Amino acid sequence: MEVKLVKKVLSVNDTMAQQNRQFFLEKKVLVLNMMSSPGAGKTAILEKTIKRLLPEIKTAVIVGDICTTNDADRLIKTGVPVVQICTDQFGGDCHLAAHVVRNAASDLNLDHVQLLIVENVGNLVCPAEFDIGEDVRIVVLSVTEGEDKPLKYPLMFRVCDAALLNKTDLLPYLDFDKETVLKNIRQIHPDMPVFELSAKTEEGFSDWIEWLKNEVEKKRYE
Amino acid sequence: MEVKLVKKVLSVNDTMAQQNRQFFLEKKVLVLNMMSSPGAGKTAILEKTIKRLLPEIKTAVIVGDICTTNDADRLIKTGVPVVQICTDQFGGDCHLAAHVVRNAASDLNLDHVQLLIVENVGNLVCPAEFDIGEDVRIVVLSVTEGEDKPLKYPLMFRVCDAALLNKTDLLPYLDFDKETVLKNIRQIHPDMPVFELSAKTEEGFSDWIEWLKNEVEKKRYE
Repeated sequence: MEVKLVKKVLSVNDTMAQQNRQFFLEKKVLVLNMMSSPGAGKTAILEKTIKRLLPEIKTAVIVGDICTTNDADRLIKTGVPVVQICTDQFGGDCHLAAHVVRNAASDLNLDHVQLLIVENVGNLVCPAEFDIGEDVRIVVLSVTEGEDKPLKYPLMFRVCDAALLNKTDLLPYLDFDKETVLKNIRQIHPDMPVFELSAKTEEGFSDWIEWLKNEVEKKRYE
Repeated sequence: MEVKLVKKVLSVNDTMAQQNRQFFLEKKVLVLNMMSSPGAGKTAILEKTIKRLLPEIKTAVIVGDICTTNDADRLIKTGVPVVQICTDQFGGDCHLAAHVVRNAASDLNLDHVQLLIVENVGNLVCPAEFDIGEDVRIVVLSVTEGEDKPLKYPLMFRVCDAALLNKTDLLPYLDFDKETVLKNIRQIHPDMPVFELSAKTEEGFSDWIEWLKNEVEKKRYE
């Protein structure tokens, strides 16, 4: 019974997501859906990423949380437009649904925006099941979470286009084997680009920023 | 529409959870539901916890994951009976439902067991919404996840009876303010016991074990 109900909700969402995709295509804006466990460092990565994209890439952000405007309060300081969604108004949803993203996007003027980043609710399970009409999906995995997460949460790593391995500055203090996590990611998604970086020290950001700029460029000429 | 569907699923679950609760009461077994983000250290905490409970407290474990039997493989080495649930058989569920726990429990002989630990799917959102018929709910928060998680995931901290603040061995390498996280926990759940510990070094385990043994004792004379 439960599975059938969930399928119904997902099919309504898919229709809305297709409408979003068409809308974003007309605006020529690349939409990036960033997902991770709680506390993997999405907001910290975005603070540093936006700083490096500006002023070349005009960016806007939609932030999803169950409660608080903490992340929006941090990201607004980068100078880009930010809309915060609090899903506790929708029963404390564990993911962003397509219609919620569309409502938030309508609060932004996207006419001169090339990149719309959606920071999803911190959850390594449910957001992977909900298409929001994005072009690119990114999963952030912090090295403090352990090497086995790609195998335990395979859908997330299967649907994402790239992975960011964050908090590499903590590697000297952890029993974490980088080769094992890379092997586990490849087992789920063989050709997935993986960018190792630290949002704290900004080590490893250049390759990630170059990849992201290239995605924005591709979208412009789509 | 979505909220209504979810409510229906939750009410079916609540009925099953009450049946579980009656079943566990007859067995005089304390059921502990342990929840956290992915990678917060639930399994590592349980390895060390079970070692300290044995042979005094007879324990069994049900482990929930979407995929893999990694956690069960680790916990079976403690010598206690372990049943692994893989929710990918149920559509990749992001939480353990009451009927799934009951099926797993029927694979265990609970006649001489005083403590049944359920390690839930790594997710700081959905498991908080699903009663499984447990007596005690524990949330694990690792210090690498940041101080704001109790405010961003308030339901989890509201429904849990105690919090374990894990990975304290990493505090010297983090910009983490312990007073802030404790203040945030108190804001959501004023009188919640918080045990600061490290599953790696076992620092701080004594108070947690004492509290847990006391809960098992209370159940025995319920």
